[in-house]
Amino acid sequence: MKWHPVYLSAVLEPDYAYARAHLLPQFLDALTAHALGRLRVGTRHAQEAVNGIRALQHFQPPVYDAGMEDLFFLLDRELAAASPLGAGALRTALSRNDLDMTVYRLSARASLLRAAQELSDLRRTLLTLAAAESTTIMIAYSHHQPAQPITLGHYLAAVENGLSRDSARLHAAMNRLNRSPLGAVALAGSSHALDRDYTAQLLAFDGPIENTYDAVSTGDWQLEIAGAVSTCAVTLSRVLYDLLNWASQGLLSLADGLVQGSSVMPQKRNPVALEHARTRFSKALGYAQAVVYSNHNTPFGDINDPGTDIQEPLHLLWQDFSQGVRLLDVSLANLYIERDLWNTQAEHSDVTLTELADTLARQSGDFRAAHDSAQKLLGSLRAQGRELRSATDDDLKALGIDVPAGTVQDALNPRSFIERRTTFGGPAPAPMQVYFTQATARLEHDTQTERTWKERFAASRALLRGDTLP
Amino acid sequence: MKWHPVYLSAVLEPDYAYARAHLLPQFLDALTAHALGRLRVGTRHAQEAVNGIRALQHFQPPVYDAGMEDLFFLLDRELAAASPLGAGALRTALSRNDLDMTVYRLSARASLLRAAQELSDLRRTLLTLAAAESTTIMIAYSHHQPAQPITLGHYLAAVENGLSRDSARLHAAMNRLNRSPLGAVALAGSSHALDRDYTAQLLAFDGPIENTYDAVSTGDWQLEIAGAVSTCAVTLSRVLYDLLNWASQGLLSLADGLVQGSSVMPQKRNPVALEHARTRFSKALGYAQAVVYSNHNTPFGDINDPGTDIQEPLHLLWQDFSQGVRLLDVSLANLYIERDLWNTQAEHSDVTLTELADTLARQSGDFRAAHDSAQKLLGSLRAQGRELRSATDDDLKALGIDVPAGTVQDALNPRSFIERRTTFGGPAPAPMQVYFTQATARLEHDTQTERTWKERFAASRALLRGDTLP
Amino acid sequence: MKWHPVYLSAVLEPDYAYARAHLLPQFLDALTAHALGRLRVGTRHAQEAVNGIRALQHFQPPVYDAGMEDLFFLLDRELAAASPLGAGALRTALSRNDLDMTVYRLSARASLLRAAQELSDLRRTLLTLAAAESTTIMIAYSHHQPAQPITLGHYLAAVENGLSRDSARLHAAMNRLNRSPLGAVALAGSSHALDRDYTAQLLAFDGPIENTYDAVSTGDWQLEIAGAVSTCAVTLSRVLYDLLNWASQGLLSLADGLVQGSSVMPQKRNPVALEHARTRFSKALGYAQAVVYSNHNTPFGDINDPGTDIQEPLHLLWQDFSQGVRLLDVSLANLYIERDLWNTQAEHSDVTLTELADTLARQSGDFRAAHDSAQKLLGSLRAQGRELRSATDDDLKALGIDVPAGTVQDALNPRSFIERRTTFGGPAPAPMQVYFTQATARLEHDTQTERTWKERFAASRALLRGDTLP
Amino acid sequence: MKWHPVYLSAVLEPDYAYARAHLLPQFLDALTAHALGRLRVGTRHAQEAVNGIRALQHFQPPVYDAGMEDLFFLLDRELAAASPLGAGALRTALSRNDLDMTVYRLSARASLLRAAQELSDLRRTLLTLAAAESTTIMIAYSHHQPAQPITLGHYLAAVENGLSRDSARLHAAMNRLNRSPLGAVALAGSSHALDRDYTAQLLAFDGPIENTYDAVSTGDWQLEIAGAVSTCAVTLSRVLYDLLNWASQGLLSLADGLVQGSSVMPQKRNPVALEHARTRFSKALGYAQAVVYSNHNTPFGDINDPGTDIQEPLHLLWQDFSQGVRLLDVSLANLYIERDLWNTQAEHSDVTLTELADTLARQSGDFRAAHDSAQKLLGSLRAQGRELRSATDDDLKALGIDVPAGTVQDALNPRSFIERRTTFGGPAPAPMQVYFTQATARLEHDTQTERTWKERFAASRALLRGDTLP
Repeated sequence: MKWHPVYLSAVLEPDYAYARAHLLPQFLDALTAHALGRLRVGTRHAQEAVNGIRALQHFQPPVYDAGMEDLFFLLDRELAAASPLGAGALRTALSRNDLDMTVYRLSARASLLRAAQELSDLRRTLLTLAAAESTTIMIAYSHHQPAQPITLGHYLAAVENGLSRDSARLHAAMNRLNRSPLGAVALAGSSHALDRDYTAQLLAFDGPIENTYDAVSTGDWQLEIAGAVSTCAVTLSRVLYDLLNWASQGLLSLADGLVQGSSVMPQKRNPVALEHARTRFSKALGYAQAVVYSNHNTPFGDINDPGTDIQEPLHLLWQDFSQGVRLLDVSLANLYIERDLWNTQAEHSDVTLTELADTLARQSGDFRAAHDSAQKLLGSLRAQGRELRSATDDDLKALGIDVPAGTVQDALNPRSFIERRTTFGGPAPAPMQVYFTQATARLEHDTQTERTWKERFAASRALLRGDTLP
Repeated sequence: MKWHPVYLSAVLEPDYAYARAHLLPQFLDALTAHALGRLRVGTRHAQEAVNGIRALQHFQPPVYDAGMEDLFFLLDRELAAASPLGAGALRTALSRNDLDMTVYRLSARASLLRAAQELSDLRRTLLTLAAAESTTIMIAYSHHQPAQPITLGHYLAAVENGLSRDSARLHAAMNRLNRSPLGAVALAGSSHALDRDYTAQLLAFDGPIENTYDAVSTGDWQLEIAGAVSTCAVTLSRVLYDLLNWASQGLLSLADGLVQGSSVMPQKRNPVALEHARTRFSKALGYAQAVVYSNHNTPFGDINDPGTDIQEPLHLLWQDFSQGVRLLDVSLANLYIERDLWNTQAEHSDVTLTELADTLARQSGDFRAAHDSAQKLLGSLRAQGRELRSATDDDLKALGIDVPAGTVQDALNPRSFIERRTTFGGPAPAPMQVYFTQATARLEHDTQTERTWKERFAASRALLRGDTLP
Repeated sequence: MKWHPVYLSAVLEPDYAYARAHLLPQFLDALTAHALGRLRVGTRHAQEAVNGIRALQHFQPPVYDAGMEDLFFLLDRELAAASPLGAGALRTALSRNDLDMTVYRLSARASLLRAAQELSDLRRTLLTLAAAESTTIMIAYSHHQPAQPITLGHYLAAVENGLSRDSARLHAAMNRLNRSPLGAVALAGSSHALDRDYTAQLLAFDGPIENTYDAVSTGDWQLEIAGAVSTCAVTLSRVLYDLLNWASQGLLSLADGLVQGSSVMPQKRNPVALEHARTRFSKALGYAQAVVYSNHNTPFGDINDPGTDIQEPLHLLWQDFSQGVRLLDVSLANLYIERDLWNTQAEHSDVTLTELADTLARQSGDFRAAHDSAQKLLGSLRAQGRELRSATDDDLKALGIDVPAGTVQDALNPRSFIERRTTFGGPAPAPMQVYFTQATARLEHDTQTERTWKERFAASRALLRGDTLP
Repeated sequence: MKWHPVYLSAVLEPDYAYARAHLLPQFLDALTAHALGRLRVGTRHAQEAVNGIRALQHFQPPVYDAGMEDLFFLLDRELAAASPLGAGALRTALSRNDLDMTVYRLSARASLLRAAQELSDLRRTLLTLAAAESTTIMIAYSHHQPAQPITLGHYLAAVENGLSRDSARLHAAMNRLNRSPLGAVALAGSSHALDRDYTAQLLAFDGPIENTYDAVSTGDWQLEIAGAVSTCAVTLSRVLYDLLNWASQGLLSLADGLVQGSSVMPQKRNPVALEHARTRFSKALGYAQAVVYSNHNTPFGDINDPGTDIQEPLHLLWQDFSQGVRLLDVSLANLYIERDLWNTQAEHSDVTLTELADTLARQSGDFRAAHDSAQKLLGSLRAQGRELRSATDDDLKALGIDVPAGTVQDALNPRSFIERRTTFGGPAPAPMQVYFTQATARLEHDTQTERTWKERFAASRALLRGDTLP
């Protein structure tokens, strides 16, 4: 068959190049599982098919030529050259439809596992850094204005807490993704015997997809990936907003090796690792949309849209997400934090005023009135050109509010503000300790789940390649 | 305070109107839970706060005026008018930050539950219709060309199978969403005593969020909703592609009450319910992006972006998704299917040719060669201007392929094609029966989960309103 | 006809409510133009149609009832009740297809014109503020680090310069949008005489669309709107990043009436007008995607997707964009800028170091070496704990670099840094003066274009309503 | 400087690889223009800089090593090795900021021009095909139901008409994009002399950007590209819907070389060129979103987001759009259209019924009543099991409607239906002839504009490389 040059250059060549670079092991695994499946149901020449495919283990696919159509037909041709009957047996009860979808899921689960592990690494870094900065005072902002003092450790723990939900989402996506389309053949199964449970198990899937038409048609696992990655990417884009803002103010800086200078401004030391991490997440969101658009308003059936053609945007999605997570991880793991500046800024700000209102409310039982009194005090100080931390009991008395001695100074101290916030989940040492204990266990559990997957997938591959016995 | 007219008309008025129309019960519930929480830790005047809020049960918020700022301050004002000290107690250890986030989660979980139930209804309709059409032959297409015969029931079961994963995604989103921000106050908890477990339980949350800063800052639950709804919407957009295509070809039509005519073309009877369902899903995808954009590249902290300002796109997302699901559901529940046309089309098509190749492969053990023979047969028939179903054993013999008598006719019959596809998940009666049994149980389980949520949320509301005792 | 309750509540009722609230004048205008068109070609009873439609000028459409289907059929019914033959004449050579598309374009051009005018207002505010702040020194950042001093006026002029391109995009969209679908009837025109040029002119369109099938099918004008609004929204989101950042640092604050306080933190004065503007643009981007998704992968023909069903997201797109532009405009028009703080920050920063390198390069002819020398000087000063502005010629000499007396101090002064940047488009007074002159003329030109549109559209309406003679 | 391995592998290496593969000519052009600009203002050693850069014309950048940081510094290093003072002169009044933005615009305008030319090619193919199929009758659908007969030529002309607006959008984007950032240096221009008009002219830009801060900060030209490409991609996705649908029904098929078979279904001949074109447009829409997200909510200043990091999604956007356009173009240019089937289908359908209503309306002057009569006739025929085309005058008389002899048969003939539709823009031969004349002239004008750009850009390059004299 002679291909049109535009079809060759726009479709066949790049598709082959992608498959050759990224999908060859998955093709071999899936074909081996299918061959072993043929063997199990007694297809003639199935053993030759198994042997033939395993013999291709170290096959290096050549550069594309128009005679091969795609990687599958190249492998088919290679196999047929070595064993015509083995090749014929392999093609029985097999279609590129179920084969491709199997390959794409095997590829996606490897990417997903890698992403999940990198996310766990980031959570570990966050917990370590949160512990180290559990007494560094941070001015927390709300609506872009100084709000209340917490610790940098409390902030970082908040981030880790959010990311633990992202880990859970990735794990859930894995559980839904890791099912086998193999044996759906074109879309209706086959009149030949097929043991879909067996081939699913060989490939370390959690079982076969329950409907053969669904198996070759659905793209929902891609959409769930797009959603889960987008969710995490957006949360991390928000964290990067804060980190870059702190870098702008000189509150932190990145290690050498993660900053770049300027060709024209000699003073520059740019936190580019964080900036590039931000763009990675922005791009991932667009690539996620490419996944959504590719599925949208297409027929629910076997088509290229959620198949071959989605591999590139999925690959980019994983790539950019992974780069973003790792750039952020190494930036945090090598951060220089100007603790004195953090603490000093907090002392000179107005962010402890809530505690004065709280204190007055404890005395009066009326927070509404206490809020008003605190506001008046601040207004009075500002009119005098004074900082909040200079306030005394007398300043309150001047507004007609009597308080026990020491009330004001005590309430306005940022450290005591924090120490008093012992609410579950708050920044005081005690709840933070509870948090660390639970978060560490949670992370250990997630890490173990990921390790188990990794071992299981590796074992499947070893078995399929004949390196181990079943 | 005097608001700028643009701020009034662009922000305060529409926000109040939205809250008044959609969030009043949630505000009352959350405030009651907070008041009961104050009571539990012994805050003075807390009982007055509880009574005061409960007294507002049938309060009708007036039309907006510039003096009220927002719904919270209106309720605060009402309460203070009735019980100044109750109002002061209620304001203790409470911020609009944690209150709003609590209200938004209560609102979202109600929408999510409704959507999940409507999706279960659709799955039920699909299973019923799949059973009814389990012998209607359908030409399944791949790459927009006739591929193989299955049954319409098999196709509909494939859809239901996919939607069962969407139900699982919605349930998972519920489990992650249904946690309480209450007690996070501004962002750091409070120096007042707070029992976050207790208020979480009162509101039928599964527990408090583990970090107070995370509680008021995160928008990840919105993003997970956006992702889960988008995933399902895209799958349904694909099903609508097929249904509308079948309607175009006259293979099915909608019931009266779901079609519209034309003002100029007297013959028209348009399947508009399906068309509008398609646009609902398309719009939902855009509204989901509004959710993503609103969170993207903002500070990770308390801001309006994932708070007040996201309510409108979230509302639209749920609204359009719900409309799409229900329009599709009633269209399917009232469908007229031209069964004869389905069956006749299949008989006159070439889609059984795979089975002939399969049959030849069973005889020769070589599918590759069998595929070639079948292709040659078709070419020969087309050259003679004959349909595939007219082929006989002799036609094969003329190509030099000998087969047992009756082989060809038997292989080319669509019904026998289907009956032979007994692969797990395939269209033959036996695997379909397995499917129905498992799918029915699965749907029952999901429905039960949803019912339990509904009862639990209703019980919480009754208790908070004082209708029932704890 | 009896509608299904789901179809009623999910489609017909909301569509009618939308048309009644937003599209009635456009329906009357389009129908009048069509009636006048019938009159021109001599259709019997056309004058009664004209009179009948004009008599509905002050008609108040009632609340929806299931008997009316939609606004068109309600108007048709009203007209027929008054003049059956007029109604019959009006229906000749008319379809809801071309009528609706005409109405939607009339509606869109009004929104587009309003948006363009509001954008011009914003540009005017920017130019005024830029002139007022043309000597306020601003530390310009690159890659989130202090880079070079410019003036706040130069920054604001950069924003205006960008927005002038957005005005051009909106104007271009208007020119492509403002063409008439009327006379396309269902999709093929009519066998009745039709003067499409005449009705286009009556409606102040720039001419009829050149192909009747295109006229009722295309959604490209919606997509161009989505693109143009998105482009501008993104640029403004970036400006808001800076403004909110400056507000966080206390460099500027909003007027009363545009800030909100906190229910728990007495010191708060949040720049919420800017924050809400940001979310308006974020949401607009999502609504723009709803427009794209609604058109994507649908048939190219008359369908609801780019018709009735797109009106809601288009309306939201315009609404949020308009709110964002106006919130930003009034925030800027009422901004309090802490000029002293801006100037002081600049004096204490390192951002003039480029000029020292430039000066050295002027002397040596080698910028690469000069860049190195300046970098070394800064390193040496930092090692001594000194600010850049304390550097003297002797400090350079200590590094082995001899310079004319006064070189260093002169180069490091922020004001002279700016004054030397007389490059076309730079921040020095001379190029800024050139800029203001050209930008003012450009804005005046755009404003005049918008005013002309407004007058022309108003004149069309007056004529159609019979208020003026043709 | 020693880079962190993650930064190396995730940022520096891929960025260098991209620049080396795609941006080297643009870097050389921009640097030459800058060098010539230095020469013009009398910078010492500028001639050596010009010579040095030109000597790098055939330089092959090596594989990345950590010592080079990026392509710019590699070129700087090469130049300095050959001519230290030339290198120093070249760095004067130059920053990577303005250089990169210049390079990115040069790259984008080349891609844009290519896309515009490919779109013109597609329009030419459409016009040719439309002329060839101007008598092939097509059943036009509305709301997925048969509506009225037009010709396939009329449909194809509608597509071309829409695409002519896309060409205009691309041309407008070119005009806004093709302006020079060079001379903005870091962001504020320079204290060295700079002739921005001159360098802009050398690079065949239409002039310098009017504000230096805007020049290095804005990403609006990328967003306009994203919008213009998305708009066109969506329209083409709709055309592909129809083409694939027609392919499914056997109304058309693709040439060999553009179809693929099946590994399991011997009868398959899939129109994959069209299917892959669809996915190219879907992916382009996602890549466009990557462009939008990368700019959204970032500071308005010099950052990587709309700079280096956007090159990949922009490249993918152009690549997929170009592939989609070309796949569609060659599919149409090599289409096999089953004209008999088109015509036969039309004759057996109900789609001419509008014309009967129109005819009756011409007689009675009341289209409302005529519409009802036609509807009744169809109902009566269906009740008798008859096709519409069997209707006679007597059938109308039986409904109490008297008409001149031959009225019914005449009205129901599809060809006469079309011939009567002489409305401007309609399918009848006369308006189609008007259309072809105008469309051909319009296309020629657009093609000429594109050819002029191509020549002008090529002339700029030849001059910069020293191949021609200024």
